[in-house]
Amino acid sequence: MNFVDLIGKKRDGLTLSYEELATVANGAATGAIPDYQLSAWLMAAFLNPLDEQETAWLTKAMAESGARIDLTGLPKPWVDKHSTGGVGDKTTLVLLPILAACGLTVVKMSGRGLGITGGTIDKLSAIPGFRLDLSPEEMKAQAAEIGVALTGQSPNLAPADKALYALRDVTGTVGSIPLIVSSILSKKIAGGADTIVLDVKCGSGAFMETPEDAQKLAAALVETGRRLGLAVKASISDMAQPLGSMVGNALEVKEAYDVLKGQAPNARFQDLCVYYTAETLEACGKVSRIEDGKAQALEVLESGKALKKFKEWVRAQEGDAFWDSGSLPEAAVVEPLRFGGAGGYVQAIDARAIGQAVIDLGGGRKRKDDQLDLSVGVEILVRVGQQIREGTNLAKVHASSLEKILEVGPMISKAFTFSDTPVQEPPLILGSF
Amino acid sequence: MNFVDLIGKKRDGLTLSYEELATVANGAATGAIPDYQLSAWLMAAFLNPLDEQETAWLTKAMAESGARIDLTGLPKPWVDKHSTGGVGDKTTLVLLPILAACGLTVVKMSGRGLGITGGTIDKLSAIPGFRLDLSPEEMKAQAAEIGVALTGQSPNLAPADKALYALRDVTGTVGSIPLIVSSILSKKIAGGADTIVLDVKCGSGAFMETPEDAQKLAAALVETGRRLGLAVKASISDMAQPLGSMVGNALEVKEAYDVLKGQAPNARFQDLCVYYTAETLEACGKVSRIEDGKAQALEVLESGKALKKFKEWVRAQEGDAFWDSGSLPEAAVVEPLRFGGAGGYVQAIDARAIGQAVIDLGGGRKRKDDQLDLSVGVEILVRVGQQIREGTNLAKVHASSLEKILEVGPMISKAFTFSDTPVQEPPLILGSF
Repeated sequence: MNFVDLIGKKRDGLTLSYEELATVANGAATGAIPDYQLSAWLMAAFLNPLDEQETAWLTKAMAESGARIDLTGLPKPWVDKHSTGGVGDKTTLVLLPILAACGLTVVKMSGRGLGITGGTIDKLSAIPGFRLDLSPEEMKAQAAEIGVALTGQSPNLAPADKALYALRDVTGTVGSIPLIVSSILSKKIAGGADTIVLDVKCGSGAFMETPEDAQKLAAALVETGRRLGLAVKASISDMAQPLGSMVGNALEVKEAYDVLKGQAPNARFQDLCVYYTAETLEACGKVSRIEDGKAQALEVLESGKALKKFKEWVRAQEGDAFWDSGSLPEAAVVEPLRFGGAGGYVQAIDARAIGQAVIDLGGGRKRKDDQLDLSVGVEILVRVGQQIREGTNLAKVHASSLEKILEVGPMISKAFTFSDTPVQEPPLILGSF
Repeated sequence: MNFVDLIGKKRDGLTLSYEELATVANGAATGAIPDYQLSAWLMAAFLNPLDEQETAWLTKAMAESGARIDLTGLPKPWVDKHSTGGVGDKTTLVLLPILAACGLTVVKMSGRGLGITGGTIDKLSAIPGFRLDLSPEEMKAQAAEIGVALTGQSPNLAPADKALYALRDVTGTVGSIPLIVSSILSKKIAGGADTIVLDVKCGSGAFMETPEDAQKLAAALVETGRRLGLAVKASISDMAQPLGSMVGNALEVKEAYDVLKGQAPNARFQDLCVYYTAETLEACGKVSRIEDGKAQALEVLESGKALKKFKEWVRAQEGDAFWDSGSLPEAAVVEPLRFGGAGGYVQAIDARAIGQAVIDLGGGRKRKDDQLDLSVGVEILVRVGQQIREGTNLAKVHASSLEKILEVGPMISKAFTFSDTPVQEPPLILGSF
């Protein structure tokens, strides 16, 4: 098969076979197909999108393009969870111990953050000593022992995705739903999962800004999973405002820990964790009604089982067992931002603006090799719909210096908008597939 | 300007500015933009084609991406001629001396052949000693002296085209009319021409197989030239049957020489040379009616002025002045192919099949680095519409061995189709723009 002919088929809107899509995936993984041909194919596939069968086949071929984690022998279901990325999204840190405490096997690879959306790997690296480079064998052994293991992305798992994603990033071909689906699911399948729960974020702080786009992505993820024989559930959650109170790496670890301890300052974040626990339990058939799943999530939270599992997990990956007593990095300066008006209601908190502010504080990446200041961030003290008075503290800024706060503070203030009349907080879950 | 944004604009069907298109051209010429980004842009431009203004701007930017030949001081017009390539197309060898004999300045770069369409550089290399590597200074000096100069493509002229064409060839993005137009005209402009006559071939032996595609290309060439202030004429000529009698490098030189000597075995090829002479003279305002131009072409042919100019040209480029007395390479074996039926009329001679047969004889390239046997080819002895009897010789095959003739002969025979009833030969010129 001449690869130019394969580019031509997709350019002309024809349908590719499994063998042809495997040629793309394996050629990307091994480097046998040069980048300039892959990028022409990617642009053709962007403008003449892959259909459902092609998407499933490409996903399968990408999943099989390198090593795979084989969880045979571990209790089923083998669960993975994925979020499309948001501002303040530390769900993984809470959801994984809850799921493991519910008796599921959770083995997850996570990525670093880029742009306004944070990365789980960056957040966990705020815990001193926490290992993020577990081998497939270590992952399996740890999951067998405590039911949960998480590592950074391995170049050996789904190497086709690594190559294709790097090219998409620099050729304007990121925003194609079939390519996004194959990228997300191929890594999950290579990681050994048979049950996958997907949190598709929607709003100003998310990759999918409109409900229409988020619905298309969620539906495509579920359909692709169905065609590949996986249990896949996808829901759309609100990312017009940041998730929870904390945005910034160490701050988000602290918030996750507070939820696990039952000291959640923002119930909306805990609600999301409870919702996705229930979705997962339903996806793998452990409960038949979402309400039963939510009850089980609250039980493991309130009983302390989830907190215990979290501590086991941190210890298993060599994290500082005493990190909750002050070992998380703390910012040099913390200053409140006050409401300057006479009174009213919080109308909106722009997640994109808050995410950008955290980048400007040094807590997020503009470029792939930027070093992070894990201590900085924004602590949001109000919720959409909340009534406020003159002088109400809207947020606290955690920064490396007063100069940084003076520089970035106005951007954070502008992220808050207000109304004179009462405001209804938008729903947390916007749809389920 | 971030090049990913520029890819995104074309991907989304937006219109690019001159500065943006110059970024593409200069980035390709200098290597500042990596191939994988250029090829994504090319596929976006293939699927969301450049509009007329973008095509003109890209052409201009590509023409200015490297060195240019400055013909200042030489008599105007400065003429170049281009054919989109066909089987048996040796027009340049006859047209250039005719035009120079008419007093025009003709400075031309030509390419090597690839696939079924031959290249002028390959044909001229059959003349022993003929230099095909003239520098821009040598080109100008020779044109000043005798009015005509021709060389192979220089990497310094329109280097953006060289880079973009190499990528298009391997990324399925050759067949885009705006990209074809910018490739053709940028080289002509960099070569110094102000008057350009274009022969768009149409039929089984041409890149444009349908009249609709050929018309689109011809119209786009003329419109782009108009926007750039050039005198451009484009006509569409028939390439359903090979042009003239000879197909194969040395054989085509011989046929061109026969036309210049007034011994043309196939008047259709001479008619084409006369037609394009008239088009050129009209394009640059030397005649106001095509008929006057044709008369002038016949005058320089019949008076021997064109033949004299051809000999001057060969001598100026150090070709063997005695090549007409046997110094052209000759094939080891020449065998006729006879008509096996009872009688009838030649209905068609498939140019693509003849072109493919010449490749198989060793006279054309399948790959860029294939070495050619310049002596081989096919000599066609009948014309479409001609009445034939049992035993009429249809063609002579010039080959390196009898085995080759046995191998390729059947393919050549199959290129001829016959009718029991009289057949009208299709018109030579299918349209003019």
